[in-house]
Amino acid sequence: MLQLWIMNYFFPRLLLDKAICKQNIKRMAEKAYLNHVVFRPHFKTHQSIAIGQWFRDAGMTAITVSSLKMAAYFVEGGWNDIFIAFPVNVLEMNSINQLAKNIHLSVSIESAFSAEYLNKHLKNTVGVYLKIDTGYHRTGLDPTNREEITQILKVINQSDKLKFIGFYTHAGHTYDAGNSIEIEKIYRNSVDQLMALRNVFQNDFPDLILSVGDTPSCGSSTDFGSIDEIRPGNFIFNDLIQAQIGICSTEDLGIALECPVVAKNRDRKELVIHGGAVHLSKESIDYQDQKNFGLVVPITTNGWGKPIKNTYVKGISQEHGIIKADDHFFKSIQIGDTVGILPVHSCLTANLADNYFTSSGEIISKMRS
Amino acid sequence: MLQLWIMNYFFPRLLLDKAICKQNIKRMAEKAYLNHVVFRPHFKTHQSIAIGQWFRDAGMTAITVSSLKMAAYFVEGGWNDIFIAFPVNVLEMNSINQLAKNIHLSVSIESAFSAEYLNKHLKNTVGVYLKIDTGYHRTGLDPTNREEITQILKVINQSDKLKFIGFYTHAGHTYDAGNSIEIEKIYRNSVDQLMALRNVFQNDFPDLILSVGDTPSCGSSTDFGSIDEIRPGNFIFNDLIQAQIGICSTEDLGIALECPVVAKNRDRKELVIHGGAVHLSKESIDYQDQKNFGLVVPITTNGWGKPIKNTYVKGISQEHGIIKADDHFFKSIQIGDTVGILPVHSCLTANLADNYFTSSGEIISKMRS
Repeated sequence: MLQLWIMNYFFPRLLLDKAICKQNIKRMAEKAYLNHVVFRPHFKTHQSIAIGQWFRDAGMTAITVSSLKMAAYFVEGGWNDIFIAFPVNVLEMNSINQLAKNIHLSVSIESAFSAEYLNKHLKNTVGVYLKIDTGYHRTGLDPTNREEITQILKVINQSDKLKFIGFYTHAGHTYDAGNSIEIEKIYRNSVDQLMALRNVFQNDFPDLILSVGDTPSCGSSTDFGSIDEIRPGNFIFNDLIQAQIGICSTEDLGIALECPVVAKNRDRKELVIHGGAVHLSKESIDYQDQKNFGLVVPITTNGWGKPIKNTYVKGISQEHGIIKADDHFFKSIQIGDTVGILPVHSCLTANLADNYFTSSGEIISKMRS
Repeated sequence: MLQLWIMNYFFPRLLLDKAICKQNIKRMAEKAYLNHVVFRPHFKTHQSIAIGQWFRDAGMTAITVSSLKMAAYFVEGGWNDIFIAFPVNVLEMNSINQLAKNIHLSVSIESAFSAEYLNKHLKNTVGVYLKIDTGYHRTGLDPTNREEITQILKVINQSDKLKFIGFYTHAGHTYDAGNSIEIEKIYRNSVDQLMALRNVFQNDFPDLILSVGDTPSCGSSTDFGSIDEIRPGNFIFNDLIQAQIGICSTEDLGIALECPVVAKNRDRKELVIHGGAVHLSKESIDYQDQKNFGLVVPITTNGWGKPIKNTYVKGISQEHGIIKADDHFFKSIQIGDTVGILPVHSCLTANLADNYFTSSGEIISKMRS
């Protein structure tokens, strides 16, 4: 019986604007189409089979995920061409073999060790992308280290289980770019490095592709150049980080966390909401020289409105959020009202939710993380 | 069938050292006993009925939680004296009424509005704690604002559904204290403010209690003074934040995230692990003038060892963790090995896990958040 109350308890809840999300998908799909590149969207952002269907409706047939668990979830949703864009985990051989028996699975490799290990233990064919570090310096092979790349490709070439797909990168340093010109510069530089690699290895692998991933590059560029595939994920929801670097406006955000106001502090003009680190994540940006954990929007009958001026989430703990509020807005809000919070990093906020709620009352389920 | 593979896929997984956790409980329980205070542990840290039982074994009969959902979960575990230490959410009246029918439920109030609303809509008796802001400035009533406190207590006094329990505080500013002397100073100051309130209101409410909450205060103080109840939570696991402010040593940490190493970068002496923001949270501390998302410990046959010198998680994204490694340690680790990560903030790390894994192979389930 108690379980029932829990299920009926919906706040904080993650609102989703279907029209905005579908518009975001359409925009990226059209851009991919016009550029003649394959669009292999990253599903780590929404983690939902139902939302995945919107991509299928827009013509997509292949996807990217960030873990084997997520790959297995989306196989249940009927996807059979999945790339796990995360350094392959050799401890997962059994599961990789199971998945590869049923679908076109591709994995990411960045060492001869992993290539040899896979070659030895694979029972079915898997595609292999080589991760190239074009400047983000998180993971990936140094593109100038031709010796190591050659060595890995040799292992792949001699294997009857490994099929080389191509080189891929995640130019995550675009997130540190100040504006679209800087993003474009980073993107061009990444593409140049991948093209140089193609020039070297295309004799041996004439079908190899070049794949890029980050939402800032894919959102900012209008011409993808000599790239064959894009893998953005965040763009479906966008967030305050994307808005801050100029990739979208706050009106392009597809999700907002609806939170009840539980207390007000008149002296500090602060609202306390039920909505904390376990709902939004601890990600923050700088906003008017202050740490900002989210912007505040009014809840409307069909979703949410524009951000309230001079009003933002200034602090966050496990379950609490503290909103520094504009005087007029402060006065208009009563305890028991709900407000919307536009997330700083939508992937992490969505990851913390069980479901999405649409304005039409639909509940969209997602993977339990 | 796919679901089965997911269930069999255990990394990253949250290891729990039962002996350390039980020792941490024992230490706090003994301190409470010696100080003649009620120990009402906060269960938001572990969120597990099974772990709750260890507290019951140590003599505890009343608990603290941070949400109604969590209260409902622990009712299933047989707890029938539960305080929700979070500003009461008036949108949850139905659930509050349901819970209050079955157990001794207490809620937190910090406005006359909430008191009146509850009085009007409650069907069963609930206990009421008044939240007092002793300096953290997150939530709570200004203790010098006697007028507002008097007004709220008047509503409570005239209600046949509201039963005043006492004044409580969460002196969260102890987390910003540099050392135990500073923590002690903050604690004494908080207690003084609560005692002043008791002096004013004890004629009307002779049984009112004073309750304090934060782990730094409860961990640091040996003499709780004129306090009646303590509500720490984090101490069962501890974390790097507690270690940094000197409340515990890294050997008192009760959990560590076991993560597979998936890549190595020789030039930067960095290890890439599967273990990111969706496992550890984005909480960080400063460590040797760098942002630190966790310390690294070796995995041993019965748990984990001491932190590796000059080795820490320097960066984190959704699924990746990047370890900056000491030269010797870097050489000793191979792709496919696992390492342990001591969390910066154990409440948030535990919140992201589905289960705990003990060295004896036991799987301890927890609330799905």
